[in-house]
Amino acid sequence: MKKPLEITSFSNEKLKYISGLKEKKNRERSNTFFIEGYREIQRAKASEKIEFEYILTCPACYLGENEEELISSIDAKTILVPKQVFEKISYRDRPDGLIATANLPDFSLSKNPNLSGAPVLVIEGVEKPGNLGTILRTAEGAGFETVFVADPRLDLFNPNVIRSSTGTLFTLDVRQGEISELYPLLKKAGYRTIAVTPEAKSLYWDGNLKGKVALVFGSEQYGLSEYARTKSDEYISLPMKGVADSLNLAMSAGILMYEVLRQNR
Amino acid sequence: MKKPLEITSFSNEKLKYISGLKEKKNRERSNTFFIEGYREIQRAKASEKIEFEYILTCPACYLGENEEELISSIDAKTILVPKQVFEKISYRDRPDGLIATANLPDFSLSKNPNLSGAPVLVIEGVEKPGNLGTILRTAEGAGFETVFVADPRLDLFNPNVIRSSTGTLFTLDVRQGEISELYPLLKKAGYRTIAVTPEAKSLYWDGNLKGKVALVFGSEQYGLSEYARTKSDEYISLPMKGVADSLNLAMSAGILMYEVLRQNR
Repeated sequence: MKKPLEITSFSNEKLKYISGLKEKKNRERSNTFFIEGYREIQRAKASEKIEFEYILTCPACYLGENEEELISSIDAKTILVPKQVFEKISYRDRPDGLIATANLPDFSLSKNPNLSGAPVLVIEGVEKPGNLGTILRTAEGAGFETVFVADPRLDLFNPNVIRSSTGTLFTLDVRQGEISELYPLLKKAGYRTIAVTPEAKSLYWDGNLKGKVALVFGSEQYGLSEYARTKSDEYISLPMKGVADSLNLAMSAGILMYEVLRQNR
Repeated sequence: MKKPLEITSFSNEKLKYISGLKEKKNRERSNTFFIEGYREIQRAKASEKIEFEYILTCPACYLGENEEELISSIDAKTILVPKQVFEKISYRDRPDGLIATANLPDFSLSKNPNLSGAPVLVIEGVEKPGNLGTILRTAEGAGFETVFVADPRLDLFNPNVIRSSTGTLFTLDVRQGEISELYPLLKKAGYRTIAVTPEAKSLYWDGNLKGKVALVFGSEQYGLSEYARTKSDEYISLPMKGVADSLNLAMSAGILMYEVLRQNR
């Protein structure tokens, strides 16, 4: 392993830069972002999509045994900091001693997304980073390979998206674009767009969710866009018993993705 | 409406008492608890299980139009406080101007729980208040009426349970008890206990989840207890594609509860 740079003062310019990447404005300015945690960095590395810049490390914070191995496998400048400095830069309650920075990857639709037959998910106008992260993590579990984040009301590289996705933001084929660009792409690839909305009369378990299916969900507060509300191939709803508002967006998406998996078993 | 008491200083003893109920030790000492939010208080009131003590109110924080109506429907002492005091006592980022205190209700197994045929849920050893709250909210949506919280590693009346349950902690029949007390009760009422564990060979969608079913989930970190691991009637698993740990407890429980609803449609 290369000899790491040791920095002991939080007022160092490099550390200020790294810590600043938790803020969107700084990510936009530098075109880099902040990845915290062994699992998240390991998945970013495994995806082969991420070009690393720095690895910030604090051996006194390690929770596992493979941290050094992961660090040596990554081509990046290593910086060693003491625990109290690491905790200041960390985004977590219980930091695990690893933070990386990396160049923002291209998640646009400019290169062809993976539309080879596996079901795909479309999330429109999502507002809450924690919801998007949980949805990605669940998509991975349900065997989805491609997730389109259409017209989001958040930044995909918000540390909370990365954390709640447990790094599946990198292992899935995640793409950001406009819904009006995406639908023609899905149609061309032979996918049926099936929008989930409480207004639909057909319950999800009566729908045919086999084959090339694109499940479409609207935002937490506003639901589907006018475009998806009028231009989807089919519409289904998720029944709710009891009092209103019983399911949040991530839960609804998880239940539907597993129904797709069940029907395609 | 009765004339409310006005208090303008946070150092007032009554306000300190109310604010203190966010801590478990104070709830145990006084046998009362803290309910924040219009929706949560409204559902506590509707459940007819909750004996209110105080309503703390800040009209400048109201987000809706029916707050005064709710307050007058509740038999409790009303305290009016200014915005900056309310925000100090509140547990939320965006408080909505209503906090109540109430006597801790009896959620033990001493009175007979509702076991009249609807599916029931058993959550063992749950650790995270947000998970339990989300599970309760989803249980309500999936038409479950009874939820057993067996040997929890948290306090049921943690403000975060109440908040993430959106008040369904009160509208559902929620009971706390020991797993070894609960299983005989379920058996006597004709329920089959079906434990969900990654060790099970049978996938959930091949299982028969119709009729008197008790779905059993273990804790986030430790899984099922030895008791549930050996004494359940059946065992099923939830398939996971891709990398490991793709589903959290609340998501797994939500997917399974909706499969029960689907099979019983």
